[in-house]
Amino acid sequence: MKPKDIIIEEQGPRDGFQSVSRVLPTDDKLKVVQALAECGISRIQICSFVHPRLVPQMADAEDLCARLPRSKEVLFSGLALNEKGVQRAVAAGLGHLAASISVSDAHSLKNTRMTLEEARARFEGMVRLAHRAGLRVRAGLQCVFGCRMEGAISKDRVLDQVKAHLDCGVEELALADSTGMGHPSAVRDIVGEVLNLAGSVPVFLHLHDTEGKGIANALAAMDVGARHFDTGLAGMGGCPFIPGATGNIATEDLVHVCHQMGLDTGIDLQRLAAVSRRVEALFGMRFPGKMHRVLDTEGLRVA
Amino acid sequence: MKPKDIIIEEQGPRDGFQSVSRVLPTDDKLKVVQALAECGISRIQICSFVHPRLVPQMADAEDLCARLPRSKEVLFSGLALNEKGVQRAVAAGLGHLAASISVSDAHSLKNTRMTLEEARARFEGMVRLAHRAGLRVRAGLQCVFGCRMEGAISKDRVLDQVKAHLDCGVEELALADSTGMGHPSAVRDIVGEVLNLAGSVPVFLHLHDTEGKGIANALAAMDVGARHFDTGLAGMGGCPFIPGATGNIATEDLVHVCHQMGLDTGIDLQRLAAVSRRVEALFGMRFPGKMHRVLDTEGLRVA
Repeated sequence: MKPKDIIIEEQGPRDGFQSVSRVLPTDDKLKVVQALAECGISRIQICSFVHPRLVPQMADAEDLCARLPRSKEVLFSGLALNEKGVQRAVAAGLGHLAASISVSDAHSLKNTRMTLEEARARFEGMVRLAHRAGLRVRAGLQCVFGCRMEGAISKDRVLDQVKAHLDCGVEELALADSTGMGHPSAVRDIVGEVLNLAGSVPVFLHLHDTEGKGIANALAAMDVGARHFDTGLAGMGGCPFIPGATGNIATEDLVHVCHQMGLDTGIDLQRLAAVSRRVEALFGMRFPGKMHRVLDTEGLRVA
Repeated sequence: MKPKDIIIEEQGPRDGFQSVSRVLPTDDKLKVVQALAECGISRIQICSFVHPRLVPQMADAEDLCARLPRSKEVLFSGLALNEKGVQRAVAAGLGHLAASISVSDAHSLKNTRMTLEEARARFEGMVRLAHRAGLRVRAGLQCVFGCRMEGAISKDRVLDQVKAHLDCGVEELALADSTGMGHPSAVRDIVGEVLNLAGSVPVFLHLHDTEGKGIANALAAMDVGARHFDTGLAGMGGCPFIPGATGNIATEDLVHVCHQMGLDTGIDLQRLAAVSRRVEALFGMRFPGKMHRVLDTEGLRVA
């Protein structure tokens, strides 16, 4: 099979589902995950191993992992925030783990009560734990393109953390624009340097559309060679109950512009858009993505 | 005064206000226009001269024109769809007129019951009429980047129409992505060629965000030298009652990314965002732009 030009990791079942207060039953989640796999999506982040009191939407993580479809084509991943989460991911039998730390001191202190130094030491322990259990690790950086409390983040701090992650021997990296403050010039600058450092280690871009620049930033990252992107079906993610907080770039929207520009994603766009509309129906909500709605009109020319 | 890097024409009072069924009283419109001018916006499309039975939101065009603030800094423009509209714009005392024709045969036939050839002949008459009365004319092309019925539009047809517009001696051009089907590769290709043909005649880009690529397309146009853009406050425009039909690129969103990338617009972003939130309150609706909402939280770092 020809390698795909652009690799997409669907994060709707984790970042998306946890952003809505209504908890989807595990059976429904499994149907969505199965349907996503049938669209040709090759990576899905399905859950996070976080305390169910904090994120009740993810309380069924173990149950979900136990009932995942057997698939050689799809990589299923889970997110862990601490050692306990890593242990749960190992026990759940997942082969791939995502974990990340902030590069903003203010954000780190507020979210984890740890300074960057403390968070980094703890993170290294999490990676060792996962590696000892045979999991592959995707190591992320949050707030790479800016923090709402701290403002811009120095590039040196980002590159420094990238080197620290690589020194731990992680299999993949992820750069998150957690706030949506990134813009194409900054993205080209930082992603270009990170790709240089990373060499053959894949670097995922996790971009939020909070300021309306999500797709522009994804394309800017492609300009300098990025090929790996996180997305959320129908643009789910963020928190629909906080005004202005919006989701991940919509899977359909990124897939569509890739296809328009001649880049292969391996994903069936029409079919995916139908899955997203079913998910909207399950939640009884409309999410901010565009193409799943455009494609709802039969016979409409899209290219 | 230093020339601005990017010139923005605010189309909210026309493209935006006509997209909502609720008709705003003229007094409210005047307050919004005045407030927009005070944000440093140098061009505003304030009305269209169309039959009030078809677009009741624009029925007060003449009254609005008569009561506009006197300003040397702001250009006020109106839209005309036919000779009757041009005559009304002349009588209303406007100095600047926008008019446009489609480059999609199917779209032209459906919207105007004229073929492209018939529409072009009629358009030339409108330009002559406006020029004889001393109005400056901005001549637009609709559906430049694709038509929902016809699909892609050939570049030759677009360039042909651009030449025809230029042969009429129009003072400005406008390329509209009426459907939002444009993508950065196509935008760079077509806008680059049009800018070459246009020489010193300014070329405005009128981009819709229907497929989520509005800001990416604007930045792609800047890559090849475009400096003139239409926008809608808070992302108004399109039709909020048709699922999937979304508005112009939001003025705040374009201004913000320009400022982040070091491009001067002459516009006060914080102040503009406050105007947009007041307009949302006037209509009792939320529009799809992002930055006017992000800027609603005091003390938040945006860059």
